[in-house]
Amino acid sequence: MTTKEKITSIREQMTQNGVSAYIIPSSDPHISEYLPDHYKCIQFASGFTGSAGTLVITQDFAGLWTDFRYFVQADEQLQDSGFELVKLKVQHAPEYIAWLHETLADNAVVAFNDRLLSVFLGQLLQNQLADKHIEFKSYDFLDPIWAGRPELPTEPAFLIDAKYSGSSTAEKLTALRKSLKSLKADYQLLSSLDDIAWLFNIRGKDVSYNPVVLSFALISADIATLFIDPIKLSLADVEVLNQSGVKTAPYGDIEKALAALPENCSVFIDPKRNCFGLFKLIPASATFIHDINPTTHFKAVKNETEVENMRSAMVKDGVAMTRFFKWMEENIGKIKITEISAAEKLKGFRAEQDTFAGVSFNTIGGYKAHGALPHYFATAESDVKILEEGLFLVDSGGQYFYGTTDITRMIALGNNTDEERTDYTLVLKAMIEGSKTLYPKGTCGYQIDSICRRPLWDYAINYGHGTGHGIGFYLNVHEGPQVLNPTNTAIPLEIGMITSIEPGIYRPGKHGVRIENLVLTIQNVSNEFNDFYSFETLTLALIDTRLIKKELLEISHIQWLNNYHNTVIDRLGPHLTTEELDWLKEKAKAI
Amino acid sequence: MTTKEKITSIREQMTQNGVSAYIIPSSDPHISEYLPDHYKCIQFASGFTGSAGTLVITQDFAGLWTDFRYFVQADEQLQDSGFELVKLKVQHAPEYIAWLHETLADNAVVAFNDRLLSVFLGQLLQNQLADKHIEFKSYDFLDPIWAGRPELPTEPAFLIDAKYSGSSTAEKLTALRKSLKSLKADYQLLSSLDDIAWLFNIRGKDVSYNPVVLSFALISADIATLFIDPIKLSLADVEVLNQSGVKTAPYGDIEKALAALPENCSVFIDPKRNCFGLFKLIPASATFIHDINPTTHFKAVKNETEVENMRSAMVKDGVAMTRFFKWMEENIGKIKITEISAAEKLKGFRAEQDTFAGVSFNTIGGYKAHGALPHYFATAESDVKILEEGLFLVDSGGQYFYGTTDITRMIALGNNTDEERTDYTLVLKAMIEGSKTLYPKGTCGYQIDSICRRPLWDYAINYGHGTGHGIGFYLNVHEGPQVLNPTNTAIPLEIGMITSIEPGIYRPGKHGVRIENLVLTIQNVSNEFNDFYSFETLTLALIDTRLIKKELLEISHIQWLNNYHNTVIDRLGPHLTTEELDWLKEKAKAI
Repeated sequence: MTTKEKITSIREQMTQNGVSAYIIPSSDPHISEYLPDHYKCIQFASGFTGSAGTLVITQDFAGLWTDFRYFVQADEQLQDSGFELVKLKVQHAPEYIAWLHETLADNAVVAFNDRLLSVFLGQLLQNQLADKHIEFKSYDFLDPIWAGRPELPTEPAFLIDAKYSGSSTAEKLTALRKSLKSLKADYQLLSSLDDIAWLFNIRGKDVSYNPVVLSFALISADIATLFIDPIKLSLADVEVLNQSGVKTAPYGDIEKALAALPENCSVFIDPKRNCFGLFKLIPASATFIHDINPTTHFKAVKNETEVENMRSAMVKDGVAMTRFFKWMEENIGKIKITEISAAEKLKGFRAEQDTFAGVSFNTIGGYKAHGALPHYFATAESDVKILEEGLFLVDSGGQYFYGTTDITRMIALGNNTDEERTDYTLVLKAMIEGSKTLYPKGTCGYQIDSICRRPLWDYAINYGHGTGHGIGFYLNVHEGPQVLNPTNTAIPLEIGMITSIEPGIYRPGKHGVRIENLVLTIQNVSNEFNDFYSFETLTLALIDTRLIKKELLEISHIQWLNNYHNTVIDRLGPHLTTEELDWLKEKAKAI
Repeated sequence: MTTKEKITSIREQMTQNGVSAYIIPSSDPHISEYLPDHYKCIQFASGFTGSAGTLVITQDFAGLWTDFRYFVQADEQLQDSGFELVKLKVQHAPEYIAWLHETLADNAVVAFNDRLLSVFLGQLLQNQLADKHIEFKSYDFLDPIWAGRPELPTEPAFLIDAKYSGSSTAEKLTALRKSLKSLKADYQLLSSLDDIAWLFNIRGKDVSYNPVVLSFALISADIATLFIDPIKLSLADVEVLNQSGVKTAPYGDIEKALAALPENCSVFIDPKRNCFGLFKLIPASATFIHDINPTTHFKAVKNETEVENMRSAMVKDGVAMTRFFKWMEENIGKIKITEISAAEKLKGFRAEQDTFAGVSFNTIGGYKAHGALPHYFATAESDVKILEEGLFLVDSGGQYFYGTTDITRMIALGNNTDEERTDYTLVLKAMIEGSKTLYPKGTCGYQIDSICRRPLWDYAINYGHGTGHGIGFYLNVHEGPQVLNPTNTAIPLEIGMITSIEPGIYRPGKHGVRIENLVLTIQNVSNEFNDFYSFETLTLALIDTRLIKKELLEISHIQWLNNYHNTVIDRLGPHLTTEELDWLKEKAKAI
């Protein structure tokens, strides 16, 4: 079935059910970023493989709303699909709602699968279309036409001992219940898989890259129930959970449990991390407390055990990156290396490392113009051979017991243009600006974001993505609540938070440059003005110095880079062969 | 009557009326920053003369909640007053509400004069104390004990011709009505005096420093009524207003007009710029649109006529500042100069300027440790003699037909410490960082704020006030909606906005340093990445170079300063005597 045929079939179903517009979000009932294959609806319907977007279909129009990062990719993938690309002005903004408001007649019916839309978006749709008296219905128009739709995964899950996570489920439940009590919530519905994984010290293999397990949780002052396919847990693990005060129930039973909540109870719901469909099952008499899940904040502030584990994951990852860089240098021009084969080789070096448990996201290996696509993933069709010229951007990461990594490096292959050298140096400068910043307690991500961008703004250059994101402890590569971006998200950086710093410059048709490290917020000085925090850079890997235009850097940037390389050599040295270490020392020598 | 006796009397009135807590905000029925004497309630009740604060009185406690800027001043002024200082953690946050929540019993009565509390604060009190079932009442417990309370002012008002304001009242009403229509508002209640002054091209002398006139306005699609004491307007001005489609009515008639609004109408109310008392007079069946007044945004984006007028006011102000600097240098140590006499002298130099119409705020002239009080005003008791040593901070401004200025400069008097030199250089660096920033369209004040702070953060230094504020066109020295501060106020800087940049370092007991210029947002380059904006510095006055530690600056800062001084010389030169110009050239020579 072609995508055009799929659109036709969806439109027929719309007509049969009196639906004027059908919305297909990129989501699942847990409002996940990375989806089980069963929920890859946008890819099935349109062919677009990006991780963010929304399809909206009417009888006259079929469109994909997506952001800056995916404009070039979507342009290519949507050719002849019947879908048109609608470029978002603001990343993640549901701009299709304003379009629906303009397009729809009064009293029209809008449909979506209400298990795939967040409570936030469901309510936003209702509010913003209220004056048009739009009726909302839930349908899955894809299921009837999705031959061979993948089943939900049944991979086993497993528990992490508190000696690795640094805190037991019982301790975490106590902290959560304290929050719920102060928020006057009788119950909390928890659907977000990383929150559940953190709270119950549980991990799984249900989703690519994220070690999470499909599950829901319902927590009250005295009961905590984990809704999970029973096949996924061993009896021993169930016993451990029970001893921590956790009951288990089948995955689908969350629906009955919500419907059976007592009248007039109060329920805590994170509106961006629960689906509209489950929310509507809760008795109408309930009062709702809408806020970010308390666990999201707890999870973001790493304890000492987690930080120490993350540090040792960084050593493993740095060793793999070093071997990859050396292999690239020694083999480029000698054997055929493509974007895909390079990514495979890098994965191989990671896999050699103790406790490797998979990559933490689909490697972005973009050669030359492909590097200008911030979220490019090479496919068999797009894959190109890497030559001894230009720039190769590699954004990759690994999952280890117990740690998650995310790193972007540039490999200079030769004959680099002056523009490439300038862009490379400015991105490095921006990354260092953020990394070396001293900032007062209370500083929010948007403040660090503008400090990172400033060196690019000086040259009238900017990038369309955020500067950085939180990262989980052996968990999702993207997590909140902190974020480094220009939006006014008032989440202060706290001691123990781990965040990426990854500015970039993208020249469509030419090249892209991005350099990314993970940093830990630590206490620095305390004085009459405030407590000041700074970043400890956790990522340990060579930063290619060959393209640097020293005259664009200040002394403080050069000092930072030379100190960083000394740390990389010191920390990775004991885990490298003599030959590898000599190679690294030569490449990382002071500029 | 001592302040302790006043507290006793207020408590007696509270007991008679069953009131458990009495709130005295720093405000008037227009939610102004600068108050007519009639409304200087906090000063009357407590003796505290700062421009921001809230008194709360219970039977057991009487406190002043105020922020960082006033801690030292409040400590001194509240001695033996019966009031205790409560230090705000966050500037302008109504932290006394949480205190009331802790302190009050269920079902208690809280009172305040509802003409002095904003709609926003009134509703916040109601919401945050809802679970304690607090009852709210409106009383003025000060009036009965305020012997000789000043009457409301009766100064004449006057109209500005569109050739000076760049836009007629009829044009402004058309733009406002377009906004109200798109917001689906049948009526707007406008209480904020600067919004009214802008909309009706009217100015007055009812408040110190701000050329505004006490008035309200009620605007619908076809009627605009200005409520103003009839004695203030000439018949000719009334006629001009009528021709612009504006009716006039007595000031107090706003109450009847609001009560007479039709049932089920929709009313636009800026909740932070209207008082709770008037809001409650509107029929309960009305629906409310709560947002920032559209006029606040219109007013902030200066048209070309306003910008040109502001530029020429800056020349007048710069000439006065130059003469003041020269006079200080030539007379210090020879005649007795105090904080107050210096401020008077500066006012005299401004008054010599064509079209001078008064100072734009109470001059902050702080010598040595007084400079560490960001909002210090010298009084007969605090005034000190200025000697040939230390630092003198002068933050001052003028009102001219047609322009408003606000400038802070430091005068180095001799024997300056190394700490003074370092602090001076870092503040200058921070001011230049902001002034020379190139930034993409859409950049908000909080982003510029962190760029300015960064040079201080590098040394673990910070300041407790914002980096900058909007400024009116021959209007209030502080205006919104844009603001440069760390809060997440998502107001982008737009071409035509004028904002101050005024970082500082404060060393209590030693000295304070602040350097302030006004800057205009202008278009810079436009390229594949975005439109980029930059600042044109409007303020034209010498920046003392004697304390600069050049090694703390980068070349770009030095270049900026030298270019700036060349501009100052070029622009002020034609208006100075040869002797003055020679003096300025010597002082402003390149470093």
